[in-house]
Amino acid sequence: MELVEEVLAGRRLQLAHLLTQIENGTSEGREALDALFPHAGKAHLIGVTGAPGTGKSTLVNHLARQYRDQQNGEPKRVGIVAVDPTSPFSGGAILGDRVRMRDLAGDSGVFIRSMASRGSLGGLATATSGVVQALDAAGFEVILIETVGAGQAEVEIARLAHTTLVVDMPGLGDDIQAIKAGIFEIADILVINKSDRPGVEATQRALQSMLQLTHPKVRLFQDSLMESRHHVADHIPAELPEMKMCEEANEAQWIPPILLTVATEGKGAAELKQAVERHRAYLVQSGELEQRERERLVSELDILIRETLAERWREQQPDEHYEQVVETLLKREISPWRAVESLLNGKSWKRSMS
Amino acid sequence: MELVEEVLAGRRLQLAHLLTQIENGTSEGREALDALFPHAGKAHLIGVTGAPGTGKSTLVNHLARQYRDQQNGEPKRVGIVAVDPTSPFSGGAILGDRVRMRDLAGDSGVFIRSMASRGSLGGLATATSGVVQALDAAGFEVILIETVGAGQAEVEIARLAHTTLVVDMPGLGDDIQAIKAGIFEIADILVINKSDRPGVEATQRALQSMLQLTHPKVRLFQDSLMESRHHVADHIPAELPEMKMCEEANEAQWIPPILLTVATEGKGAAELKQAVERHRAYLVQSGELEQRERERLVSELDILIRETLAERWREQQPDEHYEQVVETLLKREISPWRAVESLLNGKSWKRSMS
Repeated sequence: MELVEEVLAGRRLQLAHLLTQIENGTSEGREALDALFPHAGKAHLIGVTGAPGTGKSTLVNHLARQYRDQQNGEPKRVGIVAVDPTSPFSGGAILGDRVRMRDLAGDSGVFIRSMASRGSLGGLATATSGVVQALDAAGFEVILIETVGAGQAEVEIARLAHTTLVVDMPGLGDDIQAIKAGIFEIADILVINKSDRPGVEATQRALQSMLQLTHPKVRLFQDSLMESRHHVADHIPAELPEMKMCEEANEAQWIPPILLTVATEGKGAAELKQAVERHRAYLVQSGELEQRERERLVSELDILIRETLAERWREQQPDEHYEQVVETLLKREISPWRAVESLLNGKSWKRSMS
Repeated sequence: MELVEEVLAGRRLQLAHLLTQIENGTSEGREALDALFPHAGKAHLIGVTGAPGTGKSTLVNHLARQYRDQQNGEPKRVGIVAVDPTSPFSGGAILGDRVRMRDLAGDSGVFIRSMASRGSLGGLATATSGVVQALDAAGFEVILIETVGAGQAEVEIARLAHTTLVVDMPGLGDDIQAIKAGIFEIADILVINKSDRPGVEATQRALQSMLQLTHPKVRLFQDSLMESRHHVADHIPAELPEMKMCEEANEAQWIPPILLTVATEGKGAAELKQAVERHRAYLVQSGELEQRERERLVSELDILIRETLAERWREQQPDEHYEQVVETLLKREISPWRAVESLLNGKSWKRSMS
C-alpha cells in the first residue's frame, strides 16, 4: 500500500492525509492503520490534561521544544495531538494553534494535529487512538496528547498515555478544584503552572494533601515541601520536593511529583521533561509499561467492540420494527428497558408487551 | 410492587431508596422504573450547564425557590439532580450541597439528588435519565438537571432536558470561552451570571455575535441590546433585549434570549423563570416539545441498546478466546480492528490472521 510506505518514509503531506482518513473513519484509514500497527508501539505517549485556563497549550509547546533542543542530547521527533471533546458541534478544532505554529513551525521534527469531536465520545477516543498510532508508526518518538478540559472525556483520552500530566494553577475556584479531584488519580506528574501567581503555596498544599490521601508515603516528604517554599517565593520552579519523592518512589511505587512551572516564560520545562523521563524509566523498570500498554490496548479493543456491535445491530434491524417500538415508547406503553428487550430479542414488540 | 406505590404516593424515604437502586443499576431499580414509566412524562426538564465557576448551583437554587414561591401562583414541586461526570473515581458527589441544603432544606416540595459518575459515561447518562424519570413519576413538576462542567458528557446529559440553560460569566479566559463555543448550540436560554462583575458588556457582545452566526434574525434586535446597557451598569438584570427577541421568536423560531443574573443576590431569578416558561410555551405551541421528547427517548434507547449489546456479547464470549486475541494484539501481530473482526465473527483468531 503506497500511502503506508510514504508515511513510514516520513512524508508529511501523506501523513496529514492519512490522519484525515483516520479521523473520518474511512476504510482507507482503517486499512492503513492495520498495516501501520506493527510499526507502532515505540513512542512514549504523554497525556496533558487539567482545568481550562491553566495554560496547557503553552506548556505542551515548551515541553516539545525541550525534546527538540540540541543541548539536551539527540533531539526527539515530537508529535502533538490536541483533542477538544467539548466541541461536538463545531466540527473544527479551536485550540490555540496559532501560538503553537509560531513557535514550532518549520521544524520538520514536529507534527501538530488538532482534533475536535464529531459525534460520539467513543468515536473521538477511537480516532485519537488511531491518530496517535499513525504518528507513532511514522517515527515520532514522543507524542503529546493534550485535551482542552478536564472532564470524563479527557480522562478517557488520558488513558491512552504512558505518562499523564495533570496541570493545575494557583487561584482556581472551588468549582474547578472539584474537577481536579476527579482527575487527580490519573496523574503521574502534577504541574502547577502559572506558579508566579499569588496563591501558589495554597495550591501546592492542596495537591500535597490530596497526594497524602492516595499515597500515605508522601507524609515522609513534607519537609522537602517546606524547603521548597522560598523557591516558590522567588518564582523559581522548585526541584527539591519532586526529586526526593522520586528517589523513594523508584524503589516500589511511583509517587506523583509536584512541579512548578511558568510556561509563558518556559520556566520549569526542562525539569518537567526530566520528570517525564524518570517516569518512563520507572515504568520500564517496574514492568508497569507493559501493563499500561495492555490496559490501553484492551480498553481500545473494548471501545471498538462496542461500536462495531452497535453498528452491526443497526444494520440488520428493520427500520419499521424500530420505528414501531419507538412509537410505543413515546406513548409510554412500554418502558425503555422493555423496548430494548423487545428489539434485542427479535420478538415482535406486541408480543413482548403481553 | 410496594416500592412503586409508595413512590407514587410521595414517600420521600422510599424515593431516595429507589434512586439509589437506579444509580446502582439493580434489577429492583429497573423493575420499578418499568412500572413508573407510564406515570412519567409530565415534568418540565431544565438542564443547566456551563463552564466551572460560573455559579450554576446558586442559580439553580434561586430558580428552584422561584418555583416554590407562593407569590408566583401555585408553587410547583421541584426536583434537583446535580450530576458530576468529572468525578469518575471518587464515587461520591462533590457538588455544593451544603449551601443548597441550607436554602431548601425542610421544604417537602423539593427533592435534591447528587450523582457522580461510576465508570462509563453511558452509564451515568442512563442513571441520570432513570433518576429524572423516577422524580417525574413521583410528581415533581419541574426538574432541574445541573452538570458541574461543560464538556461532552454535560452536553449528553443536557440532551435530557426540554429547556437548556447555558451559564456564562464575565471575565472568563479564552480557554473557557472556547468551551462555551462547543455548548453554545444546545442553549435555549443564555445566562450571564455574576453580571455585576466588570466585563459584562464584552461577554454580552460575545454571546450576541455568536447568536448572530446561528440566528441571522438576531441582528434586528441589536438596538434593544444597546438599550439594556445602562441596566447592566446599574447591576440590574436587563429584561428588554430578551423580551423583544422572544416576541419575534414565537412566530417562527426560538432565539435564545440572553439574561443577566447575580445569583448570589437572587437577581434575575424571576426573569429567568419567566424565560423558561416562555420557552415551554414555545415548545408546546410549535410542536417541538413532542419532537424533543422523541429525540430524548430515542437517544436513551440507543444508549441502552449499546450497553446491552456489549454486556450480552461479553457474557457469551469465552474468556480464553478473548485473552488469546489480546495477547496477539499486544505482540502487534494483529491490529485492533482485525482483533475486533476476529472476536465478533466468531472465527478462531489464528484463522483470521491468514
